Amino acid sequence: MKALVYNGPRDVTVTDVPDPGIERPRDAIVQLTRSNICGSDLHMYEGRTEMQPGRVLGHENMGQIVETGPGVENLHPGDMVSVPFNVACGQCDNCEHGLTNYCLTANPDPGIAGAAYGFAGMGPWSGGQAQYLQVPWADFNLLPLPDDAIEKPNDYVMLSDIFPTGYHATELAGVQPGDSVVIYGAGPVGLMAAYSAQLKGAATVMVVDRHPDRLALAQKIGAIPISDAAASPADQVLDLTDGLGADCGCECVGYQAHDAAGHEHPNQTLNELVDSVKFTGRLGVVGVWVPLDPGASDDLARHGEVIFDYGKFWFKGQQMGTGQCPVKAYDHHLRDLIYTGKAAPSFIVSHQLPLDQAPQGYQHFDARDNGWTKVTLTPNE
Amino acid sequence: MKALVYNGPRDVTVTDVPDPGIERPRDAIVQLTRSNICGSDLHMYEGRTEMQPGRVLGHENMGQIVETGPGVENLHPGDMVSVPFNVACGQCDNCEHGLTNYCLTANPDPGIAGAAYGFAGMGPWSGGQAQYLQVPWADFNLLPLPDDAIEKPNDYVMLSDIFPTGYHATELAGVQPGDSVVIYGAGPVGLMAAYSAQLKGAATVMVVDRHPDRLALAQKIGAIPISDAAASPADQVLDLTDGLGADCGCECVGYQAHDAAGHEHPNQTLNELVDSVKFTGRLGVVGVWVPLDPGASDDLARHGEVIFDYGKFWFKGQQMGTGQCPVKAYDHHLRDLIYTGKAAPSFIVSHQLPLDQAPQGYQHFDARDNGWTKVTLTPNE
Amino acid sequence: MKALVYNGPRDVTVTDVPDPGIERPRDAIVQLTRSNICGSDLHMYEGRTEMQPGRVLGHENMGQIVETGPGVENLHPGDMVSVPFNVACGQCDNCEHGLTNYCLTANPDPGIAGAAYGFAGMGPWSGGQAQYLQVPWADFNLLPLPDDAIEKPNDYVMLSDIFPTGYHATELAGVQPGDSVVIYGAGPVGLMAAYSAQLKGAATVMVVDRHPDRLALAQKIGAIPISDAAASPADQVLDLTDGLGADCGCECVGYQAHDAAGHEHPNQTLNELVDSVKFTGRLGVVGVWVPLDPGASDDLARHGEVIFDYGKFWFKGQQMGTGQCPVKAYDHHLRDLIYTGKAAPSFIVSHQLPLDQAPQGYQHFDARDNGWTKVTLTPNE
Amino acid sequence: MKALVYNGPRDVTVTDVPDPGIERPRDAIVQLTRSNICGSDLHMYEGRTEMQPGRVLGHENMGQIVETGPGVENLHPGDMVSVPFNVACGQCDNCEHGLTNYCLTANPDPGIAGAAYGFAGMGPWSGGQAQYLQVPWADFNLLPLPDDAIEKPNDYVMLSDIFPTGYHATELAGVQPGDSVVIYGAGPVGLMAAYSAQLKGAATVMVVDRHPDRLALAQKIGAIPISDAAASPADQVLDLTDGLGADCGCECVGYQAHDAAGHEHPNQTLNELVDSVKFTGRLGVVGVWVPLDPGASDDLARHGEVIFDYGKFWFKGQQMGTGQCPVKAYDHHLRDLIYTGKAAPSFIVSHQLPLDQAPQGYQHFDARDNGWTKVTLTPNE
Repeated sequence: MKALVYNGPRDVTVTDVPDPGIERPRDAIVQLTRSNICGSDLHMYEGRTEMQPGRVLGHENMGQIVETGPGVENLHPGDMVSVPFNVACGQCDNCEHGLTNYCLTANPDPGIAGAAYGFAGMGPWSGGQAQYLQVPWADFNLLPLPDDAIEKPNDYVMLSDIFPTGYHATELAGVQPGDSVVIYGAGPVGLMAAYSAQLKGAATVMVVDRHPDRLALAQKIGAIPISDAAASPADQVLDLTDGLGADCGCECVGYQAHDAAGHEHPNQTLNELVDSVKFTGRLGVVGVWVPLDPGASDDLARHGEVIFDYGKFWFKGQQMGTGQCPVKAYDHHLRDLIYTGKAAPSFIVSHQLPLDQAPQGYQHFDARDNGWTKVTLTPNE
Repeated sequence: MKALVYNGPRDVTVTDVPDPGIERPRDAIVQLTRSNICGSDLHMYEGRTEMQPGRVLGHENMGQIVETGPGVENLHPGDMVSVPFNVACGQCDNCEHGLTNYCLTANPDPGIAGAAYGFAGMGPWSGGQAQYLQVPWADFNLLPLPDDAIEKPNDYVMLSDIFPTGYHATELAGVQPGDSVVIYGAGPVGLMAAYSAQLKGAATVMVVDRHPDRLALAQKIGAIPISDAAASPADQVLDLTDGLGADCGCECVGYQAHDAAGHEHPNQTLNELVDSVKFTGRLGVVGVWVPLDPGASDDLARHGEVIFDYGKFWFKGQQMGTGQCPVKAYDHHLRDLIYTGKAAPSFIVSHQLPLDQAPQGYQHFDARDNGWTKVTLTPNE
Repeated sequence: MKALVYNGPRDVTVTDVPDPGIERPRDAIVQLTRSNICGSDLHMYEGRTEMQPGRVLGHENMGQIVETGPGVENLHPGDMVSVPFNVACGQCDNCEHGLTNYCLTANPDPGIAGAAYGFAGMGPWSGGQAQYLQVPWADFNLLPLPDDAIEKPNDYVMLSDIFPTGYHATELAGVQPGDSVVIYGAGPVGLMAAYSAQLKGAATVMVVDRHPDRLALAQKIGAIPISDAAASPADQVLDLTDGLGADCGCECVGYQAHDAAGHEHPNQTLNELVDSVKFTGRLGVVGVWVPLDPGASDDLARHGEVIFDYGKFWFKGQQMGTGQCPVKAYDHHLRDLIYTGKAAPSFIVSHQLPLDQAPQGYQHFDARDNGWTKVTLTPNE
Repeated sequence: MKALVYNGPRDVTVTDVPDPGIERPRDAIVQLTRSNICGSDLHMYEGRTEMQPGRVLGHENMGQIVETGPGVENLHPGDMVSVPFNVACGQCDNCEHGLTNYCLTANPDPGIAGAAYGFAGMGPWSGGQAQYLQVPWADFNLLPLPDDAIEKPNDYVMLSDIFPTGYHATELAGVQPGDSVVIYGAGPVGLMAAYSAQLKGAATVMVVDRHPDRLALAQKIGAIPISDAAASPADQVLDLTDGLGADCGCECVGYQAHDAAGHEHPNQTLNELVDSVKFTGRLGVVGVWVPLDPGASDDLARHGEVIFDYGKFWFKGQQMGTGQCPVKAYDHHLRDLIYTGKAAPSFIVSHQLPLDQAPQGYQHFDARDNGWTKVTLTPNE
């Protein structure tokens, strides 16, 4: 089959690789109808991780089942499914409590919880920017899609990662109806967080970024766009909230936050977030930070250490939740919102490309080229 | 009346000051039967704050009402009461939601929420290491005590701060029955956190400190003492938890955490805590950090910035709650546990002194002299 | 001043009564700009309660402060305010925990918690279908309204009762984004519950009633109208939910539920609700039931006893929350949704009448005359 | 193998039945070291259910794995395990959300969620009052036990049902540290609820029953025994709680509640519970009610209908949770409490019998013979 293979920093190609097969009784094989490029793919693309050359990328996947192992009970060939990016066993202590983001089984690395498809350091699982994908513990992992999955693939493909991840940011931040919410980052995840806050009935949603195309999308869904190009975003948020700060806030940028000149400041959005949110407010951080970042420019960042305004954070009595999203906690409900027409997250898709053009998609998305908000691939078209 | 007055760094004296009176309709005057010296009093005592000379210290107070204003409805002279350390109005947005730790009214400093008696930066309210104390919004703030308050003053006085504060650490950390819990710090608050975790049915409580007398108290209440004098405390916790880390953890030390040589490391216990707790675990931080610390030895600390292992914290998907305790959220229930004999927090009291000997109490407690775990004062004996 | 006075069953008149004044330091006097007639006013109007002749009705109130007692700290004459229907002291055990619906102070009847304006059995407080209203513990009870309160009075007046009460139904039912929700009753409260479920991001909202005008309003806000005139509503809900039942459900009718012939069946909507909701689902019941109903037609109902399908309720493992709404828990956030234009609950208002025409309003609303969905009065126009 | 077989009302015998085997890839076979007789077994024993003659009873099971299917990944022959009474698939919508008590897969009866071993109407699964038991979805269902399972079998066997079920009652009732709790029923489940409330730090636990031997056990674990033989239990509870009622309450009796003369009143404990608990209190009901009870003495009871003081329940604004316990939600933590010595639920065991004497065990337990609190069987000794 054809697949997008990582060769090295900023070097990916579509090549032939062996077809995946059923290896364990509970495996299923999914023929992919959509597979997105994710912002976290760029960490690997840029060579900022230990990703092994030769591996297939892609963890935002959706498709049709074409084969099931003898231990798969509820799914059958022909079923349309969303593939949560987390690989999870369903029977460890964490999975049993809904923490499929930190499955204790699927990642063989001792001391590490959590696994994903096509991801550095997240287990051996191959990615879905390919024609076929092997899915373990298929009954547990796969979400069946309804009959309109054929017509709305660009909505349903968002269920595998960024719609739940944006939603998770709002859960960690405790967004309630009537709240004012500030969101750092208007990339795909930030926009999904803003969209989720709207769905939950937030009174005011403010989105901070500096790219006009992204801010325009935020505004389009009813959020207040805030550019950090001119003035301090925290000051702008305080102005909009009677000087008190937002009720809660989401971080959707991560450790590669950088200034206009491109210099990275891993503490930039965190400290702005603390400043932007009121005393007692909750913060949800789904932007990625890493324990080790060998390619960083200074020694603290290389060791995952961040100079954090902890004194202010503590003094304000804020709370913070972090980490990867447990997709299964939300995808069922978000699917139903797409089905009943109350959510249509495809609004962020700027480019739909065949698999062959995935390398160009990576190149433009990585460059934050104007208008390249989100790329979805059609691996079998 | 007699009161303990702050004159300057490590200089407190008991002197005569004017008696407090009813100034507003809802004020009450409390004659103090007990007032403790708190670890956070030491920040002021050591000159690490902007405490104004001449002010009276003391925020862990208990006593008997001797006078009430015309707007006090439910309390009467003669009532025994506990005085939560937070001063709260009961009718701002935060108080209405139970966040009396961040009252928007009681602190006149613009931009600061939260007030306390006898505390630097927490409003104008005088402290209770004195014969009498003025309490505003008395009906809302004061907790009536039952008839055995006379016999068990050293238990009930803990309701004003450290018992709820230790309990709050376990709430922020989400301690559930059957959990394993690690607690950094075996000072009074850390011991109260350990005690609270026991009351809540934790399966395993581990307490980290280096003072043998404090670790002995932790062991006495059924916790596992862990000395950081020899080996890494996080390694010891991992050994006790099958390498997974504790289910959740509490920080009860604060920014003045220091090594055996006495050098402060404001990130020390935070980073150890992240290492000690499992993926997905929750952390409750009631040890104090401050936005500005002019007396700190390095520039980061002076600005309240902490070099935090944020990459690891995020990678483990942990959550963290911080800040001062909303005493009223817990004191009613903790009072009932004392009344029915299920809790007796007086076990931490090492010294009961008359007010005149408060300066000596400060001196020994500040020096962490062996055996000086907790000092309670008897201002009217 | 002029006020709507209850004389006896189905007999109310607008007459002159003494102006209210400041009696306690924390009282305020509100000049009413709006006062609604509530469905629960009809229980009194119909003579089904022990309402004393001569009392003034009206608990859905909004207006402008014209006078404050010396103990009122944060409010001033000229402020526009919403008056939550619960009268609450702010300093009893229940109020401190946000349970202002069951204040232990405001109702002098021993053994009864909870008070309201102009309500049988809910304390001595006079109602607001009048030119002026006395509000005790004013700082705690009154919600300040923003500058557009003049332009949108018919939205903001809903904050005093039915918008929060409908919202409370969805809170008790645990409505989450993506849920399917069934609501019994398309009267004002049922419509507000449906509206709240929509605001919270429910995927499917189904509303059961038999009045076409009310069902049309439900449909207008995006809900699925279900008439119980033809087929069993529970069967219709099961058809719409793959035979599983709704995720959760709200009851907004109460003990006077009746069949098409007008015979009351106090268990009718409860049993339908149990049938309509899935195993493990949650039920929120804000329709009113009473411990004693002397005017009921059978002995069980007279003693507040209901023949409930408890076996099915238990077997399905459902949960149920009940009771009056704690308005203050929600009105702040719902106000902000009105202010930012995300909520406009005035859509239910069918008639805006001067106080003089209140008796006609009662008559038509009580008769469920077609198109009389909700009456708001303008006592000072 | 030998097994306890149900022949008809009050007729059970130990006979030879075929050994169970691996039928599906994820099955495991457990050799039972303990299997208890449960109060709900008595419903079947007495002929109050549709239990088919010939089936093997027993759903409180513990033992050692002797065989595993090829799809079992984490368990191996020799492992000691607890068998939760719920049979659950781990991959349906309910199981994924932790609602293993209402698995949508394991019960083939359309429209019924939830399955159990050896239970009328709960699927085809055979019981464990036998030498061996077949367990489906073994990795998901079975709880591994630690090395002291050999020494403490009578503690660990309680993990399969009654310890979690009693605990569940306290979860449904929302028991918090410092609460006062009333529990109806001092049978095994009621005692486990009382024990759980103690573990959670309740300030006061009151247990209502009329059997002196059971009340003595309640008192032994620190609860206040309340006999309903003399005075109204609700009145006694009110006397103990300043007339307010308990903070929350648990129902552990069920529909066969009866008066001293033996006449059943399915509403008896429910109405007493409502009377005993304060306004706003929460009620957890784990005593069993059934939708159909053909053997009941009156028509309402035959249809699962209960004359409930709903008016009072609603007027007090109480909340109620019901249904079977999701054992997996709690057994991990309760196991750890047994392991660390903080819980020893074996205190309720009055009789340990070999399987051959199971019929006598049923007879005495069913008769509530004095001292027959709880029978555990040793099927392989």
